[in-house]
Amino acid sequence: MVHTYNHNVHYYETDKMGVTHHSNYIRFMEETRIDFMERIGYGYYRMEEEGVGSPVMAITCDYKKPSTYPDIVTVELQVLEMRPLKISFCYTMKVGETVVCTATSLHCFIDSDGRPVKYQERYPELAEKLREYLKA
Amino acid sequence: MVHTYNHNVHYYETDKMGVTHHSNYIRFMEETRIDFMERIGYGYYRMEEEGVGSPVMAITCDYKKPSTYPDIVTVELQVLEMRPLKISFCYTMKVGETVVCTATSLHCFIDSDGRPVKYQERYPELAEKLREYLKA
Amino acid sequence: MVHTYNHNVHYYETDKMGVTHHSNYIRFMEETRIDFMERIGYGYYRMEEEGVGSPVMAITCDYKKPSTYPDIVTVELQVLEMRPLKISFCYTMKVGETVVCTATSLHCFIDSDGRPVKYQERYPELAEKLREYLKA
Amino acid sequence: MVHTYNHNVHYYETDKMGVTHHSNYIRFMEETRIDFMERIGYGYYRMEEEGVGSPVMAITCDYKKPSTYPDIVTVELQVLEMRPLKISFCYTMKVGETVVCTATSLHCFIDSDGRPVKYQERYPELAEKLREYLKA
Repeated sequence: MVHTYNHNVHYYETDKMGVTHHSNYIRFMEETRIDFMERIGYGYYRMEEEGVGSPVMAITCDYKKPSTYPDIVTVELQVLEMRPLKISFCYTMKVGETVVCTATSLHCFIDSDGRPVKYQERYPELAEKLREYLKA
Repeated sequence: MVHTYNHNVHYYETDKMGVTHHSNYIRFMEETRIDFMERIGYGYYRMEEEGVGSPVMAITCDYKKPSTYPDIVTVELQVLEMRPLKISFCYTMKVGETVVCTATSLHCFIDSDGRPVKYQERYPELAEKLREYLKA
Repeated sequence: MVHTYNHNVHYYETDKMGVTHHSNYIRFMEETRIDFMERIGYGYYRMEEEGVGSPVMAITCDYKKPSTYPDIVTVELQVLEMRPLKISFCYTMKVGETVVCTATSLHCFIDSDGRPVKYQERYPELAEKLREYLKA
Repeated sequence: MVHTYNHNVHYYETDKMGVTHHSNYIRFMEETRIDFMERIGYGYYRMEEEGVGSPVMAITCDYKKPSTYPDIVTVELQVLEMRPLKISFCYTMKVGETVVCTATSLHCFIDSDGRPVKYQERYPELAEKLREYLKA
């Protein structure tokens, strides 16, 4: 499965080249990821309640084509890999049918003491949901 | 007295009009204010130690001329008014001799319980310093 | 009439106080204004085609209560005043029923040579639409 | 050789986790790169005069440790690889002696028609300067 999220490019997200500044795609990825976690039932409030955070460990971003205001960037998220302590997501961002950016992000889960969490063991239902979005 | 602070406009602060996006001047004001408080001896760490915050209550901003990357925006800060529970600052932002923006900000001081602080009574030395920068 | 626009506060719009950074409200206002112009038929492409821009001349912003991720900020826009060469908008931003911010913005219209445009004369239909949103 | 650039983390660059939002490191990289190009004599104005742009094609970013306001992030830039049509830079970002982020960026050079430029042939002096900063 693929999780899809739309971001309307805002005027203030463009730069003097007339295109979306490349740093903003990192923010579109975060919006999409947060929206995805909400969708599968492990949104912000629930994770906070559980005392579990999931910081960004690494990012890759390949810029294919520019986008600009007032484009709608459609972000398609899939789970790229699930390891005991880490998870990675991949993102394909499109304007219409044109791919403007592909990207990945790597995350861990940590508890309130900063210790890494074996999320698949502690949250088997979350792991099951995530597996549905695993990239083939 | 006048407190002066320089902000180098960054490429990512411009928009597709080719100029500094107007929302960024609000950030230049914050940078200047924080730099000013540091200069007069009541910087971030000290205020945090004292358990005192000073949220922004209001902003006004008059955009006179555009600026852009790679301009240096020189911000001149003065204290506009000191009331028992509130303080306001005024800002003149220039590129070279050209005024690009004039602005004001209004703040209160609150303790860790969110209660307003009579800052002139509690911090007479701070009040004295602030008075040196009062606009004539 | 009132034009209403929703902005979902993003995680990256918060600051270390745990609330929406105050500079972002200026951006919510722009989003709302652009959405409004689109709604009344004078959106970005049309204005660009007409060779008419409408820069921000001034902003005022009164911060009433904090908002934070993942609040939805509902922005209510009205036309505050229509002068021959200038127009001002007012904004009431709410989270649920709580007003978090009230604001105004002042604009002019300029043609591609940078000359001010008497927008009510040149675009009578636009003026008529704008009048429908005039604050009583 | 290594090009060094300092970025003072601003309050508005933090998020509600209390740390520098990860998207901002992409901006620190741009600031450093622009500062570097200026230093070696091929700054913004000169490149614009030459009609040559150098868009970002790809980014990688490894987040090692958090930084926050009011840290000073010191960015060390080196040239990672020089190909006929592409160039990559690598960045080590530190707070004091602690590495907070390592990153790379990939760029091409294009002329005003959008055609790729063999920068080492067209600008042999630039190529020579760049080689001085090649990572061993």
